[in-house]
Amino acid sequence: MAWNDKDGEIEHALERGFTVNVDGHSVPGVYWQPKQGNADFLVLLGHGGGTHKKVDYLLAMVELLAQRGIAAMSIDGPGHGERVQGDGSQSVNEFASLWHGGGGTETVIKDWMGCLDFVEAKMGARATAWWGLSMGTMMGLPVTATDKRIRLALFGLMGDWGPNQQDLVRLAPKVTCPVRFLVQWDDEIVPRDACFSLFNLLGSKVKTLHANPGPHAAVPRFEMVASIAYLDEKLRKYAATQA
Amino acid sequence: MAWNDKDGEIEHALERGFTVNVDGHSVPGVYWQPKQGNADFLVLLGHGGGTHKKVDYLLAMVELLAQRGIAAMSIDGPGHGERVQGDGSQSVNEFASLWHGGGGTETVIKDWMGCLDFVEAKMGARATAWWGLSMGTMMGLPVTATDKRIRLALFGLMGDWGPNQQDLVRLAPKVTCPVRFLVQWDDEIVPRDACFSLFNLLGSKVKTLHANPGPHAAVPRFEMVASIAYLDEKLRKYAATQA
Repeated sequence: MAWNDKDGEIEHALERGFTVNVDGHSVPGVYWQPKQGNADFLVLLGHGGGTHKKVDYLLAMVELLAQRGIAAMSIDGPGHGERVQGDGSQSVNEFASLWHGGGGTETVIKDWMGCLDFVEAKMGARATAWWGLSMGTMMGLPVTATDKRIRLALFGLMGDWGPNQQDLVRLAPKVTCPVRFLVQWDDEIVPRDACFSLFNLLGSKVKTLHANPGPHAAVPRFEMVASIAYLDEKLRKYAATQA
Repeated sequence: MAWNDKDGEIEHALERGFTVNVDGHSVPGVYWQPKQGNADFLVLLGHGGGTHKKVDYLLAMVELLAQRGIAAMSIDGPGHGERVQGDGSQSVNEFASLWHGGGGTETVIKDWMGCLDFVEAKMGARATAWWGLSMGTMMGLPVTATDKRIRLALFGLMGDWGPNQQDLVRLAPKVTCPVRFLVQWDDEIVPRDACFSLFNLLGSKVKTLHANPGPHAAVPRFEMVASIAYLDEKLRKYAATQA
């Protein structure tokens, strides 16, 4: 339960590695402190399937957040990143077995909450948001439904679908914070109708779905950039209501 | 084919009425010149069913446009506003008969193009966008498909549905400009699945659907405001590519 020596630096943030023990297993994570600004807000970044806590597109989001003075945290999901076993290759069936073999949805929730506890203990508690697509929503929706420290969420590329389908369906009504939900119209992995069903189930009164043409992994850059602006704007509004 | 005496003023724009003859019938319209800025761009505002060219929510959009230095134009659709016959009350059946009685889609296209010709003759040609929801899309999609002076469009609250359903289905693939398309998730008039179908048919490579909870007439204010920011940003980008 400590910072490790995996420190680094990207253009707009300092990077610190950490390892947290949760229920006897070890969860590797990263925290990014923006070089500028007050780090008044924190965003939890959930990576997609087959990637890891420091995959390129997450680092791009960290840079955008840091430019706005927002801190970020990411961890490896079960069977991903530093938690890979074997050669790390995945078929769809292997993905499901990794998810369940890693303890499934309940363990994922505990992993994230334990790591957020650690970061809050070290760096202070702040208004916090979720950002995660695909497996980043498989993880993030249950975490957001459970941990009310998360005040808003960017979800997407996920539906009433996949290895934790039943958990997503059960927990979506318990998500009540504002949500933006991204859909790829021609998603070849998670069909758009499944995404619509999951969006429909969210308990949030304020939720907006944004859909763009293209396959699963082709979210337009303008939509990615806008998703960070959305989190920033909403976190500021939330903070203003608490002041 | 002239300005009429129906001039006025709102907070951020001067308002001039005009009447244009199209194929022997008279089309009443309004042009708004922003008080500030260069009026480098023009937005055509299509009103919804049962309303008219100067309905409150359109005036709110005109104010937002004028604050950004953008000019606007609106006309009464068939059987609406100054073109109302009888007591002006409408059932759904009456709406359809007004649409067809007014000449249908082909006449609507000619009406808008004739009025745009007039405004361009008087005020100069500029990069032009469409903004219109519900009947504003019933009118705007055919106009945008036909008149390539329209460089981008804000559509929504309309589907593979209604009195000119076949025209919308036929013409949607001919719309090729960037489009933002608004959907109300709980639309009690135009079902969201019909809206999804129409969005799907649009020929535009760049198109984004935004869906929010609530009934037909309850588009959130933030989405209305963002729709104007979208037109402004995209018109500027378009103009930059032409410079």
